Amino acid sequence: MPEPQAQDELLYLGIDGGGTKCSAILTCSKHNSLGRGLAGPANPFRGPEQTIDSIEKATTLALRDAGLSQDDLSRVIAGVGLAGVNLPIVYETMSKWKHPYKEMFLTTDLEIACAGAHDGHDGGVIVVGTGSSGCSIVNGEVLIIGAHGFEFGDTSSGAWLGRQAIRAVLLAEDDLGPKTQLTESVSEALGSNGVSIVEKMVGAKPSDFASLAGLVFAAADKGDEVATDIIQQGASYLSHMVRKLASTNPPAISVLGGLKDLILPWLDDDVRMQLVAAKNAADVGAVIYAEQKHREMEATAKVSRPSN
Amino acid sequence: MPEPQAQDELLYLGIDGGGTKCSAILTCSKHNSLGRGLAGPANPFRGPEQTIDSIEKATTLALRDAGLSQDDLSRVIAGVGLAGVNLPIVYETMSKWKHPYKEMFLTTDLEIACAGAHDGHDGGVIVVGTGSSGCSIVNGEVLIIGAHGFEFGDTSSGAWLGRQAIRAVLLAEDDLGPKTQLTESVSEALGSNGVSIVEKMVGAKPSDFASLAGLVFAAADKGDEVATDIIQQGASYLSHMVRKLASTNPPAISVLGGLKDLILPWLDDDVRMQLVAAKNAADVGAVIYAEQKHREMEATAKVSRPSN
Repeated sequence: MPEPQAQDELLYLGIDGGGTKCSAILTCSKHNSLGRGLAGPANPFRGPEQTIDSIEKATTLALRDAGLSQDDLSRVIAGVGLAGVNLPIVYETMSKWKHPYKEMFLTTDLEIACAGAHDGHDGGVIVVGTGSSGCSIVNGEVLIIGAHGFEFGDTSSGAWLGRQAIRAVLLAEDDLGPKTQLTESVSEALGSNGVSIVEKMVGAKPSDFASLAGLVFAAADKGDEVATDIIQQGASYLSHMVRKLASTNPPAISVLGGLKDLILPWLDDDVRMQLVAAKNAADVGAVIYAEQKHREMEATAKVSRPSN
Repeated sequence: MPEPQAQDELLYLGIDGGGTKCSAILTCSKHNSLGRGLAGPANPFRGPEQTIDSIEKATTLALRDAGLSQDDLSRVIAGVGLAGVNLPIVYETMSKWKHPYKEMFLTTDLEIACAGAHDGHDGGVIVVGTGSSGCSIVNGEVLIIGAHGFEFGDTSSGAWLGRQAIRAVLLAEDDLGPKTQLTESVSEALGSNGVSIVEKMVGAKPSDFASLAGLVFAAADKGDEVATDIIQQGASYLSHMVRKLASTNPPAISVLGGLKDLILPWLDDDVRMQLVAAKNAADVGAVIYAEQKHREMEATAKVSRPSN
């Protein structure tokens, strides 16, 4: 039978939600993982319902993995980092969620990624996954670069690379651009060509486009001119982003996200030289964020409580 | 009281439907306009319901303008040219429409534009409006270039120019691109900046983006470097498109669409030299198309009818 004290003990839950997946980690403290959970997309810009559903699923799986039950939610302090929350209206929508936790601290996926990468200390990150963006936290000042979404930004992200590849296929089929190994492999992967690609991609999500990113890197590795052009254009944007983050003087900058290993060799030399490996994943960063915010709240509560 | 013969006489209706508007012209023959009607967007790629609604409204207005009633629809041969109909699934959807006409001939907005520009003879057109695309008709062979829609194509169209302008504003606000008169005028026109623009444009239609195109041309005229870059990139694509159409040897090529006068000076000299003015608008082209198709059908019917 568990000790009564253990049943009262606070638990920390870190949630990292993005366009492709939502991961959860349950801990006693950041270095003591009890369980993990993984669920589907959690980008509230594309719908709060699916996001909440994914967070709840990832939470349940993490509790189960830790041998705990839903009853234990009452002692969970959750740090929730989500893509899209940099948009005020999205933040507002998600803040209204009647969450099941004891406390919830909501912020961007970027801030928890940065907290994770640098163990809660100042630093910067660029995240290159389904989307792309950058963030630095220096002396409490948060600078976010990009995070404008697939329509206007996400340059060099998996979704962007995939869309550029499709555009190259369509240009080639109009004989207005070169036909290369890339344009052939993309047509093949989609199982269609010409205007049929347009039909096939109606309602496609960024993650659908991102599924083509691997083909672009594979073609570029073999010297494909179209693939190389696309990646160089994207990498140039990311190199500029790193330099911009560096101008805020963070002690360290890391590159994160599903494409980090593939894009790294394409960044400018001066940029690559200053990048360091991240200390923790973003979901651990969400735990660190939750611990920090909870401690701040406790401190504020103590200060505002009469001393007698 | 109208002559009995007049009540039996065939009428031709030309419909030109695109992302921004749907225009209708009612005629006895192509050179004898009886009435006109104008309604909202009619791009079936973005929804067949709205398209049908716009076509019906434009038809009703044209009938009314001609002093005719819905009863007269039974003697209307309609030529309907619509954006998006180059996609097989869109064509199929629109073909299922239980239209109110005696006969309806459905084709792309490009084919009717080409028929109109060259009076039903062989020729080529590029259309630069909300979207962009090109078409040539030579010896019955139809070549369509572009027409891939806003997600993957429409380079140099109004919607594309507007989106590029917004991207430039967001890049400038991240300090990753120059702040210029254009980035300021676009922020002002949208009444917002930074991520608020992203919020503001959620669910925006291509026509919403296209409403910013005028600002890009205005800034470029004053030497704005960002605006000039955007337009040069777009115009280069169009110049290539004209050369590609020219390679099919059409007797003449015209540039059409809402932005034709603004984009013309930016096309390459060799391209501009070979462009001729269009003879008729696209809705008249739809009438010409309907007359041609109706005549072909009559001829086929006569041939297949036993001669005794």
